[in-house]
Amino acid sequence: MSLIVMKFGGSSVGTPERMKRVASRIVERKREGHQCVVVVSAMGDTTDELIDLSKQIADGNPPAREMDMLLTTGEQVSVALLSMAIHSLGEPAVSFTGWQAGMYTEAVHAKARITDIQPKRVLAALDAGQIVIVAGFQGMSEEGEITTLGRGGSDTTAVALAAAIKADVCEIFTDVDGVYSTDPRVVKCARKLGEISYDEMLELANLGAAVLHPRAVEYAKNYNVSLVVRSSFNHNEGTYVKEEAAMEQGIVVRGIAYDKNVARISILGVEEKPGQLAKVFTALANAQVDVDIIVQSGVLNGLADFSCTVSLADRETALQAIEAIRPSVGFREVTSEINLVKVSIVGAGMVSTPGVAAKMFEVISDLGISILLVSTSEIKTSCVIENSRLNEVISALHSAYGLDTEETAFVGGPSERR
Amino acid sequence: MSLIVMKFGGSSVGTPERMKRVASRIVERKREGHQCVVVVSAMGDTTDELIDLSKQIADGNPPAREMDMLLTTGEQVSVALLSMAIHSLGEPAVSFTGWQAGMYTEAVHAKARITDIQPKRVLAALDAGQIVIVAGFQGMSEEGEITTLGRGGSDTTAVALAAAIKADVCEIFTDVDGVYSTDPRVVKCARKLGEISYDEMLELANLGAAVLHPRAVEYAKNYNVSLVVRSSFNHNEGTYVKEEAAMEQGIVVRGIAYDKNVARISILGVEEKPGQLAKVFTALANAQVDVDIIVQSGVLNGLADFSCTVSLADRETALQAIEAIRPSVGFREVTSEINLVKVSIVGAGMVSTPGVAAKMFEVISDLGISILLVSTSEIKTSCVIENSRLNEVISALHSAYGLDTEETAFVGGPSERR
Repeated sequence: MSLIVMKFGGSSVGTPERMKRVASRIVERKREGHQCVVVVSAMGDTTDELIDLSKQIADGNPPAREMDMLLTTGEQVSVALLSMAIHSLGEPAVSFTGWQAGMYTEAVHAKARITDIQPKRVLAALDAGQIVIVAGFQGMSEEGEITTLGRGGSDTTAVALAAAIKADVCEIFTDVDGVYSTDPRVVKCARKLGEISYDEMLELANLGAAVLHPRAVEYAKNYNVSLVVRSSFNHNEGTYVKEEAAMEQGIVVRGIAYDKNVARISILGVEEKPGQLAKVFTALANAQVDVDIIVQSGVLNGLADFSCTVSLADRETALQAIEAIRPSVGFREVTSEINLVKVSIVGAGMVSTPGVAAKMFEVISDLGISILLVSTSEIKTSCVIENSRLNEVISALHSAYGLDTEETAFVGGPSERR
Repeated sequence: MSLIVMKFGGSSVGTPERMKRVASRIVERKREGHQCVVVVSAMGDTTDELIDLSKQIADGNPPAREMDMLLTTGEQVSVALLSMAIHSLGEPAVSFTGWQAGMYTEAVHAKARITDIQPKRVLAALDAGQIVIVAGFQGMSEEGEITTLGRGGSDTTAVALAAAIKADVCEIFTDVDGVYSTDPRVVKCARKLGEISYDEMLELANLGAAVLHPRAVEYAKNYNVSLVVRSSFNHNEGTYVKEEAAMEQGIVVRGIAYDKNVARISILGVEEKPGQLAKVFTALANAQVDVDIIVQSGVLNGLADFSCTVSLADRETALQAIEAIRPSVGFREVTSEINLVKVSIVGAGMVSTPGVAAKMFEVISDLGISILLVSTSEIKTSCVIENSRLNEVISALHSAYGLDTEETAFVGGPSERR
């Protein structure tokens, strides 16, 4: 008998029919002899509908506290309905809100961090033989305020709860079969990975692979929670996310990610003097613009060029923030560029394998494509390019790093090690 | 400066526009210098929609605990949105769920009674100058379970909270101008009452005047909460509900109510022996049938006839329950009758004024209409008749008791005494 945490996202419970299917799946697990704790998100578009409603009523920015009050009802509806669906199948179930499940957070709204979990009621219900359904995404501050964990919060709820109750495994159910070597919509021979390390998953999640929220991966890494990403629509093996040390070696590049939500901002002809870079990026930070890649080119005739990438939504704000400091910085012009994409290769073996990044640059330039910006970390290399030839680039990289062959893709897969 | 509890029902906040109008009304009050606590129900049809959703997912009867979990989200959405609407108008507001507001109830679902109120957070927020919005209809048991108060629960929340925080007045906003002498849809010259006693209101509420829930009236009477029923769509004076002693005397009949949800059950030819009546009504009670009027006719040849009224929905159940005890009771036949209406006259002065009931019987028989059943209490007399001539009967009674004339209807109205 194992203790399992199962997490179902909003699309998995988007309709009454899907909700019932999820209930069957949970009951199946329970009848296999497992103890089940289920974390569930708001049904389908509920959250967006609630946000729309708030926009019809509140001018400008409604208080974050009240938004949390509003949005947490979405998950509360889900847990109640899922519990009813399980009852209909003849198994005992009990639903809990975040505060009932003992999910304590900071006294911050819209993006609170979990500070403590007191799963007394969850454990008591499990002991009583019940299936426990917990509302994802939400918690309570010490002061009794209802809080939310922000985007991807339900993943975090599931992983944190799994850590707190020492679950044997945390299963994240989603609408894809697992984590892929790259986007299967772009590269036909993309392969589902059998396993991936926490760090690799973290990079992929941060690079736009929407399958798992980075914060949840971080939590899983810190508490060593055994994590599986799998489909809620079939019984296929998913992807195991685990410690690197526990994995088969020999894979240099695990996956290829891309992110089209990229704009390049260039500040040209900046007078070279100390503190210029700091001035620019302090201005951007003050304007709440998240900057990703930052590059300073060499200095020519006492003038330098800066470039950085920001999200498309932040482009206008970034340009205005930079214009505003023109008098104090002194530069010739600021420009921006869109229709770009950031392509990244991710793999924990990269740091100990020379030439991995070089091969990426070579593959891209062999296609006659210019690399506009580069950024590297120990386990990833990212290149920003024009997005018109994205599919070609990804396919070529997928081949070049040997991800097309079945052997490579499945080395260390879970079937061999369970 | 007064401390005011304002309660708005679901239709008053049924759309974003109405929600905003309610917000303006509250802000108006606050700017007049009052402290405001607002109790609000779920928006419009939300509760019915949630019930529909549960029916699509759960077979048969879903657990009451999970229904409470589900339905309480409706009020939570309302309080959050109303708080946002008030913020948009520039006043500070804070919303609370039932448990946050300290509404403790029995550990019973779907119809819990309030056991204790600990309005610490409500009072602290008022002290901080905030408008406090509390979710109606809901509470929490000592064990931390979310509970609901049943139909009309938001009225009860408002009155109970008003008592707990010693509010100066509890204003119940609804879609009518106040309590009427009778249904204005039936009698054109029906008049809005200026005031009414708790007991009279209680009778009217129990007799089907949907404007206030009986439990809330009872609560107001027990804790002597000053209550006003008024329209959320205009600023007209409402109806004050108060202690009888505090009212002008001289009104014998305050109002006329009717209830079409009536079926008559007759058990004919019952063998006369001790305990027969008890057997019948124990059987009905065990079948969860609420019985209203009970009449036993005289005994003829050792055989008696019993009659009672039940709600239309309970008719079948009642007939079956009685058939089931035929062997032990012994009777000739059981019949039922529908298309009836119970007409009631209500007035606290009735008990000390001879001939009030007699006049009612006279008015009805002068119209050539048979009275099928009669029931009386200290402050009301009810007659069950065929419903085809209801409007005529009510109009005639309205005239006969002098309710048509403006003078009578407004005697003791609030304009003279504030």
